[in-house]
Amino acid sequence: MPSLDRHDNVFVLDLGDGENRFHPDWIGAVGAALDEVEKAEGPRALVTAATGKFYSNGLDLEWLFAHADAYHDYVVSVHELFARLLSLPVVTVAALQGHTFAAGAMFSLAHDFRVMRADRGYWCLPEADIDIPFTPGMAALIQSRLTPRTAHEAMVTARRYGGADAAAAGIVDRAVPEEAVPSTALDIARAQSAKAGATLGTIKARMYAPALTTLRDTTNPLG
Amino acid sequence: MPSLDRHDNVFVLDLGDGENRFHPDWIGAVGAALDEVEKAEGPRALVTAATGKFYSNGLDLEWLFAHADAYHDYVVSVHELFARLLSLPVVTVAALQGHTFAAGAMFSLAHDFRVMRADRGYWCLPEADIDIPFTPGMAALIQSRLTPRTAHEAMVTARRYGGADAAAAGIVDRAVPEEAVPSTALDIARAQSAKAGATLGTIKARMYAPALTTLRDTTNPLG
Amino acid sequence: MPSLDRHDNVFVLDLGDGENRFHPDWIGAVGAALDEVEKAEGPRALVTAATGKFYSNGLDLEWLFAHADAYHDYVVSVHELFARLLSLPVVTVAALQGHTFAAGAMFSLAHDFRVMRADRGYWCLPEADIDIPFTPGMAALIQSRLTPRTAHEAMVTARRYGGADAAAAGIVDRAVPEEAVPSTALDIARAQSAKAGATLGTIKARMYAPALTTLRDTTNPLG
Repeated sequence: MPSLDRHDNVFVLDLGDGENRFHPDWIGAVGAALDEVEKAEGPRALVTAATGKFYSNGLDLEWLFAHADAYHDYVVSVHELFARLLSLPVVTVAALQGHTFAAGAMFSLAHDFRVMRADRGYWCLPEADIDIPFTPGMAALIQSRLTPRTAHEAMVTARRYGGADAAAAGIVDRAVPEEAVPSTALDIARAQSAKAGATLGTIKARMYAPALTTLRDTTNPLG
Repeated sequence: MPSLDRHDNVFVLDLGDGENRFHPDWIGAVGAALDEVEKAEGPRALVTAATGKFYSNGLDLEWLFAHADAYHDYVVSVHELFARLLSLPVVTVAALQGHTFAAGAMFSLAHDFRVMRADRGYWCLPEADIDIPFTPGMAALIQSRLTPRTAHEAMVTARRYGGADAAAAGIVDRAVPEEAVPSTALDIARAQSAKAGATLGTIKARMYAPALTTLRDTTNPLG
Repeated sequence: MPSLDRHDNVFVLDLGDGENRFHPDWIGAVGAALDEVEKAEGPRALVTAATGKFYSNGLDLEWLFAHADAYHDYVVSVHELFARLLSLPVVTVAALQGHTFAAGAMFSLAHDFRVMRADRGYWCLPEADIDIPFTPGMAALIQSRLTPRTAHEAMVTARRYGGADAAAAGIVDRAVPEEAVPSTALDIARAQSAKAGATLGTIKARMYAPALTTLRDTTNPLG
């Protein structure tokens, strides 16, 4: 389960050491961690990280198949997680040490910055291949952070981007050797920790107002 | 006149060997071809191509001058052609072997991918020079596919982009030698043919919902 | 105070030799210059330039502190200045010879093109550092001209971009040696002067319709 730690001004949220899929309990734990980071005072920033082969593999399809009647509420909760992270009043950095797929890739895009391992692991939106269309909220999130061309290629072709390709396409900000992923993410977070506060939250909320509105439309989240 | 052929999983729509302007009959023939591609089943993709000096030179201004009272309906039909192609539930690739101008350039942008001849031929939106403003639908289409900077330069300065410049600006995905244009387009189409289907159509329709709404606004298509 | 001069087809608006902040009189003088450029006939383009260490340092905070009750009207007048420049029916080029900060940087983004001195001077949106959130109109302007990634970095981190970095990020179109800034801007303007006119105005107004609507929303300009 996700757990939150603090190193001076930088909170580090460990997403887990498995596939780190979005089980309702996982979503709840991440949400509680965001509460804690948001409520803290003074200079602070947030790094999300994981251990093992995956950063996150996205929606918990196994749980979903067993709880089909909860689909609507589940998607609403995933959208709300994306919206909160996208407008969090602290700078956020995703440290992508492993595979970052589907809703896990969208979760990474809701951060301010992304650092990816250069030599192994993929960032991928496989929805076109696994026959699950993006919800309008997911599409709005992805398209609000990527160029039209990169969003199109990623969403239509389900391309698996290695670190260097993801950096070239502007999906991630840095592609670095495995051992440098955590320190690079921490450095970026530390350098921006003084910006935490209401102004930063307002800046992000206004920048992404259209995507946030779509993500928080609970009447028809599935489109 | 446009004619449709099939090579295994790839449909090839030949737009013609002249200027391939958008005469109403040409629009009708392209629309019928899109119908056939859309209705076909199984893995499939679409390449559009042409022969001679032009891929397409855009609106049929000669026909328009002779049918000025049909301007509204004509623009509605061009917008609908762009909208259909932009949301077609198969992957589409434009093989730009020659000049691609004005509405022909917009038609190319409604494809998923563009391959352009590197050594000769231009991609150009000459509207600012020939005193025909983009309709709101045309502007929405162009801006949905290009970075703000490229859209601005292309739309405001009417710059003629050769293949290498078009690739550098992100207008086309590949600029290749003349003889490699068809094969490169076919390769891209073939590699994506398994994605054809309703999910792909939904993904594209959601990605481009704002542009599609503007393109399909028939009450005031001219702005 | 700003003063307008003309060299053949190119108007040159000198923004001043100080910090060139947006005092109400400065805004009025710039607006009157835009009136003159807009009303002139025939081929024409506009270069804005300045002398000294600053192109513009943005809002006149000293004046604002002394006239807090005028804040709403002041912001409306700044938004209107941005909107007019963004949709001016002549091609505009900003010659950034010195620091270009905050609303001065936004003013530069409302031009068609930007030429920046390569070796000294910064382009910067310091709002996140000085605790002044972007108004919705300002955010809409900035985001309409930059890629999502560049807009995010510039708005969230308040990064100071030197000329080469600004060119690499697509914020400016050219970074050149100090002595080449004016001539490069003049060359771009001269080359585009034949485009002046109603069609160009319509093209820009349609391209930036959403940003212009937000900039001209006078009911709640502060968000």
